[in-house]
Amino acid sequence: MRGGGGAATARLAVAARAFSSAGGGVAMVQGASRGIGLEFVRQLLRRRDQGRVVATCRAPGSAAELQKLKEEHAPGRLTVLPLDVTDETTIEAAASSIQETHGSLDLLINSTGILSIPNVIQPETTLSKVQKSSLLLAYEVNAVGPILVIKHMWPLLKVGGRSETGRGFSLVANISARVSSIGDNGLGGWHSYRASKTALNQLTKTVSVEFGRKDNIACILLHPGTVDTDLSRPFQRNVPKDKLFTREFSVQKLLSIIDSVKKSDNGKFFAWDGQEIPW
Amino acid sequence: MRGGGGAATARLAVAARAFSSAGGGVAMVQGASRGIGLEFVRQLLRRRDQGRVVATCRAPGSAAELQKLKEEHAPGRLTVLPLDVTDETTIEAAASSIQETHGSLDLLINSTGILSIPNVIQPETTLSKVQKSSLLLAYEVNAVGPILVIKHMWPLLKVGGRSETGRGFSLVANISARVSSIGDNGLGGWHSYRASKTALNQLTKTVSVEFGRKDNIACILLHPGTVDTDLSRPFQRNVPKDKLFTREFSVQKLLSIIDSVKKSDNGKFFAWDGQEIPW
Repeated sequence: MRGGGGAATARLAVAARAFSSAGGGVAMVQGASRGIGLEFVRQLLRRRDQGRVVATCRAPGSAAELQKLKEEHAPGRLTVLPLDVTDETTIEAAASSIQETHGSLDLLINSTGILSIPNVIQPETTLSKVQKSSLLLAYEVNAVGPILVIKHMWPLLKVGGRSETGRGFSLVANISARVSSIGDNGLGGWHSYRASKTALNQLTKTVSVEFGRKDNIACILLHPGTVDTDLSRPFQRNVPKDKLFTREFSVQKLLSIIDSVKKSDNGKFFAWDGQEIPW
Repeated sequence: MRGGGGAATARLAVAARAFSSAGGGVAMVQGASRGIGLEFVRQLLRRRDQGRVVATCRAPGSAAELQKLKEEHAPGRLTVLPLDVTDETTIEAAASSIQETHGSLDLLINSTGILSIPNVIQPETTLSKVQKSSLLLAYEVNAVGPILVIKHMWPLLKVGGRSETGRGFSLVANISARVSSIGDNGLGGWHSYRASKTALNQLTKTVSVEFGRKDNIACILLHPGTVDTDLSRPFQRNVPKDKLFTREFSVQKLLSIIDSVKKSDNGKFFAWDGQEIPW
């Protein structure tokens, strides 16, 4: 027996399993109440029929969009948990809760980011406007927060990423931004935001080295493009129309990277179109 | 008359002026009580016969080495001022004092750096040891501090760098470290220190863009090598003997970069041997 037909059937079965299992697993989206994070939750629920999603935000009770998504999907598909990246006890509590409910994590998307809050923090247009409080706040939210989330989700990521998903390893995707690239910085300004995201890049790279050595986990950085969200709204004036993405488009692109990423991409920084961004 | 002799004399006069004026100007060393900062003060006083040096540290009263250097040199050559990078009011006070005494700055060397303090901060060997307090403290001292110093010294740097020095522009040199390079990070660990110095690189680049546009100032980053100082002492075990530099050697090398740097080097990151370090 040549076994050709059998091999073809086996190949199809593997493909089918890979497809359905790519829809499985447990994905966590941190910073999910609005913007890109919310859109990740929406698309993950839609694309991964079997998958469960954990969405975290500071105040689940007032996250109307997340609550609506929860009602629209089967019980257990979406869990919404409180998590404030500036309060480590809430990160630990979220990790305990996920441990109890799901026991593992296959995908962690860190999507929080602070750029401007009226009367609190504004992207600086010149050095003379740089304030210590803004530098520290941006660092705490954009760099320290995501790393503490990874630290506490690490045990869950270690046991994730196996047969249940098609990927074969757990993945951490941190949302960075092209303005964090030092080599690409030709415009200046935005000191607090830039420095915090550059630090996030370094921290992600540092963590990726350890994961690459010990664990079945990869870490990547993603640049979503300029997306029409609350974060970018005050700064969209000079963005050409075709360069201002909808959340749907940007997250589609980012999820296609997340779905096709290889273990050897551990520690890399990708733009929405899959191009690597220089440090 | 051919005028050859006259031209040669003129050339010699220009060379002589350039030489003596390279010895002039006002240099500030921030973080000067010990380590590399102290050695910068020592060599600047020795090499630049006419130059004046402003050395800052947290507690001038207990900075015995600086006080000794002050006594060894002519009155007015060395000024020692209190400055704590974590207390912005002391930076402002130092700027006012320099404004009154010198009126300008030609060179600013930011030399403070925190890596480890027993029971306060330790270079992390793994993600599970990463503490929020360490991340924030390293950022405050290594990234925020130097940028606030540049912010407040900016008016003095704007009026410096002219005829008095051979350089023709004012220079800011921030002491960074090779471990801040994301591209070069193959070992992992040292999360707090790495991220803070990487952020310093981005902030320096950001500031350099603005200076390049408006001012007669350049900003560079310097990697001193692994130098035998209090900072590196607990971590020297694995450093090959020929890779552990004396302070004298490292600062000699860094000063030769500082002396030969061009305006077009604005925003670059140099190692002690003059090689550029990737971001």
